[in-house]
Amino acid sequence: MAVSSRIKDVQAASRSLNAFYFQSRYGKRRAAPDICDFTFGNPHEMPLPEIVSAIRTHAVPKDENWFAYKASEAEPRSFLAEHVGRELGLAFEPADIALTSGAFAAIALIFHLTLDQGDEAIFSEPAWFCYEPMLLAAHAVPRKVALAAPSFDLDLSAIDAAIGQKTKLVIVNTPHNPTGRIYTGRMLRDLADLLERASARVGHRIYLLSDEPYRRLRFDGRAFDSPASFYPWTFISYSYGKVLLSPGQRLGYMAISPLMPPEERRAFQQAAFPAQVAIGWSFPNAVMQYAVPDLEKLSIDQAALARRRDRLLPVLRQAGCEPLVPEGTFYLWSRWPDGEPDRHWSALADRDVFVLPGSLMNAEHYFRISLTASDAMVEKALPVFAQADQGG
Amino acid sequence: MAVSSRIKDVQAASRSLNAFYFQSRYGKRRAAPDICDFTFGNPHEMPLPEIVSAIRTHAVPKDENWFAYKASEAEPRSFLAEHVGRELGLAFEPADIALTSGAFAAIALIFHLTLDQGDEAIFSEPAWFCYEPMLLAAHAVPRKVALAAPSFDLDLSAIDAAIGQKTKLVIVNTPHNPTGRIYTGRMLRDLADLLERASARVGHRIYLLSDEPYRRLRFDGRAFDSPASFYPWTFISYSYGKVLLSPGQRLGYMAISPLMPPEERRAFQQAAFPAQVAIGWSFPNAVMQYAVPDLEKLSIDQAALARRRDRLLPVLRQAGCEPLVPEGTFYLWSRWPDGEPDRHWSALADRDVFVLPGSLMNAEHYFRISLTASDAMVEKALPVFAQADQGG
Repeated sequence: MAVSSRIKDVQAASRSLNAFYFQSRYGKRRAAPDICDFTFGNPHEMPLPEIVSAIRTHAVPKDENWFAYKASEAEPRSFLAEHVGRELGLAFEPADIALTSGAFAAIALIFHLTLDQGDEAIFSEPAWFCYEPMLLAAHAVPRKVALAAPSFDLDLSAIDAAIGQKTKLVIVNTPHNPTGRIYTGRMLRDLADLLERASARVGHRIYLLSDEPYRRLRFDGRAFDSPASFYPWTFISYSYGKVLLSPGQRLGYMAISPLMPPEERRAFQQAAFPAQVAIGWSFPNAVMQYAVPDLEKLSIDQAALARRRDRLLPVLRQAGCEPLVPEGTFYLWSRWPDGEPDRHWSALADRDVFVLPGSLMNAEHYFRISLTASDAMVEKALPVFAQADQGG
Repeated sequence: MAVSSRIKDVQAASRSLNAFYFQSRYGKRRAAPDICDFTFGNPHEMPLPEIVSAIRTHAVPKDENWFAYKASEAEPRSFLAEHVGRELGLAFEPADIALTSGAFAAIALIFHLTLDQGDEAIFSEPAWFCYEPMLLAAHAVPRKVALAAPSFDLDLSAIDAAIGQKTKLVIVNTPHNPTGRIYTGRMLRDLADLLERASARVGHRIYLLSDEPYRRLRFDGRAFDSPASFYPWTFISYSYGKVLLSPGQRLGYMAISPLMPPEERRAFQQAAFPAQVAIGWSFPNAVMQYAVPDLEKLSIDQAALARRRDRLLPVLRQAGCEPLVPEGTFYLWSRWPDGEPDRHWSALADRDVFVLPGSLMNAEHYFRISLTASDAMVEKALPVFAQADQGG
């Protein structure tokens, strides 16, 4: 048939998510105004007015080049090198930063920079939906290991055991979607030691992708450590889509750890621009690049996320669910009560409460709640969640 | 070394262009306000005010989902199916249209939809700079044939001769960058017949990519025929970056020819969304999608392009250049006078007139002038071009 083999593989890897989104009971109801939608990390309240004014302000041209081709522009690069450097305690140069049209583009860039045909990349499940199809589209091989339930910490020995001659990249996502875990500095240091030993063992450098789009969404004043501080061969992907809850505006970046040895660091710095052009000119548009300094200051209401979390947790527990207390992200991950997960999901859906079934993330006994639902949805759904054990 | 082999190939294929842009005499002078810059298709005048107002208007949220994830949204798809359908005389369905962040993303999407590792794609030189690095990034194999100088028509027998068992895609760019040629309906029909015969000969379907970002930029009221009208297995890539001279705002689309047989057409329609997600969520941002109907009506001042062309042509001819009269695009393609092309280029550069050397497009005896230079640049450069034969 007509479609390339790689995209057929991508379609197979995307099938269950797309079926859920487009064809499931959720797909049929998702546009209805009265449902309680806890599925995806999409906004259910009006955007921050400061985002609107940033876009409107920077749409007004100051010179003839205002809408000319923009790659990774000097001003946002310098700005981010300084601000992200201060945030993470890492001495970025502007050339370490590549502006991208969201974290997707940053991840695609890192895959292309580090992986050739048949190279393997390891990630831990449950995981974000798109690592697998993105690796397949890039002709790389996804290798999945399980996170260590019930804490969903990284299973370092499973990662170590999965590393072989073909392994070129390990992906870590912290704060973690869907579990809300933030990995500790100690665990990341152990991971770094593991990758150092494994690189020596396999005879080539294993790189680390630290996918950190939820980095600024943390509960209870928790600290965050970037893997880039522990393992010099780390690339960071970041998106403003989460902290601004505006994923439609496509703004993010890739950052090279400044701890990387100089020769390799220069090589990746120099490769980033031609690579990003060649994968589809995946730079943010001009207006969004001008807006970086304004947007960098903003965040959605994190107190609201905590409030919703704290409303839901006791109700879920009472209903026999086993929720994990999220440390970061805007998700709440929970085990279903005993019984059949599908029937639990359907019983909620019968009452127009929609959650993300863990089966979409290879964790069928779990579900994910997105705390980006409105307070009104939370209040309306509480009595439904209170009977979550009566559906299975 | 660290960087993947494919990106090293991309770097090698991008080297001369990047050296010109960043390190050449042009690279050192390009930001200077007093130069006459005829190199790239970038704006040298203020943007159309209607672009600014479209962005500012559509940045104002009308609902909670205003900046939510946007894929190929229903409204711009329907709008484009109708409007592009009327323009090209083709009955597009909304599902034939995939909104992309510029033509780069449309081209990357088409490459991924049709090409697997080692598959060959044929294009004609001189050509746009990025087909080759984009094919290499996608693990495909570029096969180049020459256009038929001095008319720079497609060399159909050269294309036919280049087609083999590995050929999956042929790329045609009309109106053509850099030559300004618009291929006639007769020639495109002959190409379609050729591809039909060749597909039968090699035993699989050869697809056609019709790269048409300059489609609305035509001189002297000339007609345009899309290859999608002649060859059913055609994908169109389009960008608003040319007709609006705002390439920094990243808006374009991929369109499947509605003449494609239903089963294949459906297969590509269904594959486009997961493919586009997997290559890096390469949809235009939310604001740009809302702006499509407003932007669709606009164009830069095409009379100004014709005026600049007509000022330059006689002067170039008198100086011993052999310009091709452009039929479309905003470029003017010319042969240098006798002598050494490098010395001709340098003599212009000595007087702060910068053109694109044809050597960057594997055509060292030629150069390209972008008519996006301002009228003032044209007037200032005319006496310099008048002595173009005195530099070699």
